[in-house]
Amino acid sequence: MQFEITREFIDRVKELIEFNKVQELKLLIDPLHPADIAEMMDDLSLDEARSIYLLLEDEKASDVLVEIPENDRKKILNVLPPELIATKFIEYMDSDDAADIVADLDEVLKQEVLKEIEDAEQAEDIADLLEYDEDSAGGIMAKELVSVNENWTVATCLKEISRQAEEVDEIFYVYVVDDELKLKGVLSLKKLILNPTHTKISNIYNKDVKTVNTDTRQEEIAEIMDKYDLIAVPVIDEEGCLKGRITFDDVIDFVREEAERDYQMISGISGDVEPGDKVWKLLNARIPWLLIGLLGGILGALVLGSHETELSTVTELAFFIPLIAAMAGNVGVQSSSIVVQSIASGVKEIESTSKRLLKEVLVAVATASIFAVLIFLYNFFTQGNMNLTYSVSISLFIVIIFASVFGSVIPMVLFKLKIDPALATGPFITTMNDILGLFIYLGIGKIFFRII
Amino acid sequence: MQFEITREFIDRVKELIEFNKVQELKLLIDPLHPADIAEMMDDLSLDEARSIYLLLEDEKASDVLVEIPENDRKKILNVLPPELIATKFIEYMDSDDAADIVADLDEVLKQEVLKEIEDAEQAEDIADLLEYDEDSAGGIMAKELVSVNENWTVATCLKEISRQAEEVDEIFYVYVVDDELKLKGVLSLKKLILNPTHTKISNIYNKDVKTVNTDTRQEEIAEIMDKYDLIAVPVIDEEGCLKGRITFDDVIDFVREEAERDYQMISGISGDVEPGDKVWKLLNARIPWLLIGLLGGILGALVLGSHETELSTVTELAFFIPLIAAMAGNVGVQSSSIVVQSIASGVKEIESTSKRLLKEVLVAVATASIFAVLIFLYNFFTQGNMNLTYSVSISLFIVIIFASVFGSVIPMVLFKLKIDPALATGPFITTMNDILGLFIYLGIGKIFFRII
Repeated sequence: MQFEITREFIDRVKELIEFNKVQELKLLIDPLHPADIAEMMDDLSLDEARSIYLLLEDEKASDVLVEIPENDRKKILNVLPPELIATKFIEYMDSDDAADIVADLDEVLKQEVLKEIEDAEQAEDIADLLEYDEDSAGGIMAKELVSVNENWTVATCLKEISRQAEEVDEIFYVYVVDDELKLKGVLSLKKLILNPTHTKISNIYNKDVKTVNTDTRQEEIAEIMDKYDLIAVPVIDEEGCLKGRITFDDVIDFVREEAERDYQMISGISGDVEPGDKVWKLLNARIPWLLIGLLGGILGALVLGSHETELSTVTELAFFIPLIAAMAGNVGVQSSSIVVQSIASGVKEIESTSKRLLKEVLVAVATASIFAVLIFLYNFFTQGNMNLTYSVSISLFIVIIFASVFGSVIPMVLFKLKIDPALATGPFITTMNDILGLFIYLGIGKIFFRII
Repeated sequence: MQFEITREFIDRVKELIEFNKVQELKLLIDPLHPADIAEMMDDLSLDEARSIYLLLEDEKASDVLVEIPENDRKKILNVLPPELIATKFIEYMDSDDAADIVADLDEVLKQEVLKEIEDAEQAEDIADLLEYDEDSAGGIMAKELVSVNENWTVATCLKEISRQAEEVDEIFYVYVVDDELKLKGVLSLKKLILNPTHTKISNIYNKDVKTVNTDTRQEEIAEIMDKYDLIAVPVIDEEGCLKGRITFDDVIDFVREEAERDYQMISGISGDVEPGDKVWKLLNARIPWLLIGLLGGILGALVLGSHETELSTVTELAFFIPLIAAMAGNVGVQSSSIVVQSIASGVKEIESTSKRLLKEVLVAVATASIFAVLIFLYNFFTQGNMNLTYSVSISLFIVIIFASVFGSVIPMVLFKLKIDPALATGPFITTMNDILGLFIYLGIGKIFFRII
């Protein structure tokens, strides 16, 4: 039922491209869904991918182009002549996809492509969409939608829908506007079908419609569509005029990408990689954060080196270095990830910042007390050295509180500064808390063992 | 435009409930969307929430009930009489929501509720849905859908749709079946509106429809709907007969929940918590994984304790303990998260397990070489002790390879054993690799310093 791309299939495609067997290749590729062709492209070289594009009908080629990753798309397009981009690809796309693709082109090419678009209305729509910030509703919305006047009857509507529907792939909802094009409400196709043709639209449409403004941020759009289970949401300007619509597939992609990016941050991976990727790509994704870890380790070695006297006088102090570092790291990651996840899910805080901080301190003190007591009991019964027992417990107590508060506060501060708060998760927070933990631990050890 | 729940609003609601001001409360709550009421419930006590349910009209009350978290729902329902559950809630729900809710009830209550459902067809639908595994398409699908026979005309279809549409909230697609109820294809409402009434359905429907089987797993359904941008997917049985449909909102919820769960695993949080939650709930979510970290720290202390001679003879060995532990932890988390994310995103591997392992080893050796050389250079120029320089570099090399391979292999093995692979991310993998790293490091130090 479901088509699956196998290694054999890829090998066959590569072979047919190599020997330029165009007819056989067409027979193999044509029945595939654009999303499947896009997936297959991932395993082809740039040149092989280009051969496939030239082989496909224009409409399918543009559907495939919309589905592939941004970087691959740039590589394909930046060597093509502008009028080919305009006539083979852009012409068959919805305005939102077209605008995204044009926005990614180099500045000179972008202007040339815009000039080559034959349909004046489409060119205007794209130029209009390019004005908006790409993370705002204006930057995501498509211009294609079906709208009807509130004063019409069902019969007029159906006629008008037939006229407008040609350029809209899926209708989802019909938007109802007044004479000034202000959005008044929404009408489902079901309602249109179920009502007699002479019924006035104003009597059957739903006035309670959720909308977003052209400058609403992506996060908020996703939250609204998810919360109210919307397939599409209309976008209005400050005057309440209908400007476009955003559909569920844009939002699913956004939710998934955001989640993946946060997950990569916390696991110390830069970029979107899969086990199947090439070795250099995997290395590229892994080395940056490991370098930070290495620097942190070297700093840690310097901190320990500056406490050489303590460590050589009381060797046992060294035993608990991993424990202090691990607890600091784990607590910090927990705190930061709770904050990051709540920001990502768009939860509106009904508590003030000071109240949240107080709560974080409370949780930190409670956690710190529990683990300080546990390690105290362990050391009390297994270690002969009471100074060590006190040093470890007291430093663990302090370290957990610091790690917890830092872990919460840093992402909050980053968020206020409009920097991605997820930066403060994973290797960054563990490394920072490791070093801080060592400082506190050896400082306290010094006091207890009266080492001067 | 967008309603927001404020602290003041919640306080006002609590006050009105306390003083039993039913009319004012109704005025305040009635205009709200069920999703907003559900969100508000989160900040109310169980008794307060019950008062709200009694106040709402039955249809709205059941919409709210569907939106609240499973655990809260159980608490509300398990004290209500079965016939109230059946007539106030279940009767107004789609079959999929109703089945989910009935499935969660205690066994005795479940049977009683099923008996109390008045609509025989609905009772049968629910009983039927309860037969399927709750993570399979059969367990997620709703029975409500609109289907038409391929031999009908558009006119017959429109009449039949009016008849069927009453119990279906949103139609999305009309499914086309043959005389044996086997699914043949799909028809959009747009096509129905755009074609003359005498057109035969068989001439206009789309035969290329993506389907899932009743036993398809949730992960795969999400992957298919996301890949092909589907709002709804029909579910068929082994004979190809149409059994139900799954809509995009079920899948968005699933994708989001899966991502959140994986994120919690890697950050060492058990359960779904937000900074705004009560202190005990936050503690409850954080302590379990920290206990594992503590145990790991104690094991680490034992490992170091058993190498007391080495550490007291060569104090400098202790300096690099945090570096070795941190690198082992970070590398392990990277490897495991790449595997877990690729499993979660449902990527079909076109490479064999042995080839993937070989690649992981290659990446590990490359990473290990880079960082072993870096730390060698650092120590060569800053430390006088060549034995230490060699020990640190060589152990870092070995530790990275082990951490990397373990990090990849453990989630793969868990997945094969049908255990959640995400268990092997976060605190678990860092703790394990920490201890392993210490073993290797001190073992190698012992050899270089010829300590017996």
